[in-house]
Amino acid sequence: MARKSVDQVRQVTSIGAGPIGGGWAAHFLAQGYDVTAYLHDPAEETGLRRTVETAWQCLSQIGLAPGASPSRLRCTSDLGEAVAEADFVQESVPEILEVKQALYEQLGSLVPADVVISSSTSGLSMSQIQARCATPERTVVGHPFNPPYLLPLVEMIGGEKTDPPALDWAADFYRHVGKAPLVLTKEVPGFVATRLQEAVWREALHMIENGEATPEQIDIAMVTGPGPRWAFAGPCFTYHIGGGEGGMAYCLEQFGPALKFPWTRLEAPELSDDLKTQLIAACDRMAQDRDFAQLSGERDKGLIAVAQAWQKIGKLT
Amino acid sequence: MARKSVDQVRQVTSIGAGPIGGGWAAHFLAQGYDVTAYLHDPAEETGLRRTVETAWQCLSQIGLAPGASPSRLRCTSDLGEAVAEADFVQESVPEILEVKQALYEQLGSLVPADVVISSSTSGLSMSQIQARCATPERTVVGHPFNPPYLLPLVEMIGGEKTDPPALDWAADFYRHVGKAPLVLTKEVPGFVATRLQEAVWREALHMIENGEATPEQIDIAMVTGPGPRWAFAGPCFTYHIGGGEGGMAYCLEQFGPALKFPWTRLEAPELSDDLKTQLIAACDRMAQDRDFAQLSGERDKGLIAVAQAWQKIGKLT
Repeated sequence: MARKSVDQVRQVTSIGAGPIGGGWAAHFLAQGYDVTAYLHDPAEETGLRRTVETAWQCLSQIGLAPGASPSRLRCTSDLGEAVAEADFVQESVPEILEVKQALYEQLGSLVPADVVISSSTSGLSMSQIQARCATPERTVVGHPFNPPYLLPLVEMIGGEKTDPPALDWAADFYRHVGKAPLVLTKEVPGFVATRLQEAVWREALHMIENGEATPEQIDIAMVTGPGPRWAFAGPCFTYHIGGGEGGMAYCLEQFGPALKFPWTRLEAPELSDDLKTQLIAACDRMAQDRDFAQLSGERDKGLIAVAQAWQKIGKLT
Repeated sequence: MARKSVDQVRQVTSIGAGPIGGGWAAHFLAQGYDVTAYLHDPAEETGLRRTVETAWQCLSQIGLAPGASPSRLRCTSDLGEAVAEADFVQESVPEILEVKQALYEQLGSLVPADVVISSSTSGLSMSQIQARCATPERTVVGHPFNPPYLLPLVEMIGGEKTDPPALDWAADFYRHVGKAPLVLTKEVPGFVATRLQEAVWREALHMIENGEATPEQIDIAMVTGPGPRWAFAGPCFTYHIGGGEGGMAYCLEQFGPALKFPWTRLEAPELSDDLKTQLIAACDRMAQDRDFAQLSGERDKGLIAVAQAWQKIGKLT
């Protein structure tokens, strides 16, 4: 397939006028692309432009590409016209399988077959979405995190009929436009980030239900405790740094037994040698030769940035 | 009990030379107190002073109280001398019940009975710790989050013999010194923050074990997805803002059914009317008359601060 290289992309089409579709449009505009937004109903244009305007105030603070301008946004309710010139299509219509399947059936013939179509779906599988599409090889999932103009994560996976090179191309393209693509190899419900988020949410609901903590207390605990650390290092690497000179290996030895304690309603898997080895090796790779003093120094820099932001703008909770 | 008012406290004793004891010492020094550190072994002084020095570089960036100085730290290995002048005692010795019980037995007679003794314990209960203390009424748990000189959270609870006013006094004192005390009423294993953290950790272990995601992928997902939001709003309020104009009520309606989906191994409780009402009311209180536009604007300011910090210092993971 003669696909353009990622740096030859000039024109992006964003399908959908909600906060996700609008957020994507703003992101691609800020990256210097011509963006066409497809609106199911022309009346949605006002809302979409408002989303882009709000996002623009944020994006201009963290940097715009040369020539980037919100005036390079064009809106249309003609699907053929919306995708005619597209080098990449990001789809963010409502999470209703029938709606997505019907749309991909149309896109399958309207969008040139070498153009990747990526779905923002958070809960549906690409195998289902692409079922009625005549050219499913180039359809992938690219699930962003809200707001998509500020959070870099894009969780990715193909469907049964997706060509692996299409997924690779889309991951390269997302990386090229400043996103953090996370290409999964197993189709797991909720991908990764939503699963972590849901684990927290479900444990929180149990605590509230049992009168162990109020919603306010749960929120305070998160914002003043683990939250700020997780803005800079994930759960594995946070423990690696917390383990001091001994890193993850020390943590597993020290806190391994706590996995048997009722410190949440979620049962832990057995901490096998294989699992331990994977964790330790991964943390060593992430450390990239930085020793404990460097790592804890970098963690502290991140937490100082959050503390300074709290001083300036407060906490929300 | 004629306890000093929190603004009359001049002298704080920090017991323990590890990262928690040293972190507490640095925090109280930065708040302008005279601090005495009790070291089990005089040889620990070098390590303790190094911890304080490292912390000081951070603390001086987010603000020191007038007159605050690391030179106001005194170290001793004489327990009686360490607590003789103390207006408040923070204990951070290793998490070994026998060690803590023996220490509290001594402290019970050495520390004047009107002085609160707070334990940094993360896993032991105060009812057990205070068992051999002759004056247990003023002993409480004040569990910080690492590093204690940067993260505000202090989870608090009393033991069976703790006088409630002692707990109130300690919460007031922590608030007075810039901490975020979270006073719990039920002794729940892991308190609140560790339970949330453990739910994430256990779900992550399951994903790694099943080959659904690598530790690196889990860390990237957290840092580029939910993590930055949780530095400014907790899990409940994050959904409230995510729900747009409809807030938490809309979220519960929209995403309630997802609680039945296998979006983590943690089973959710039934989303009863009572639980829904508690969540919606709490989010309304936290919103304090701010509408959706204001709230999402404030969330975005927080995320911009994180994005700018990433540009300057990078992510750790």
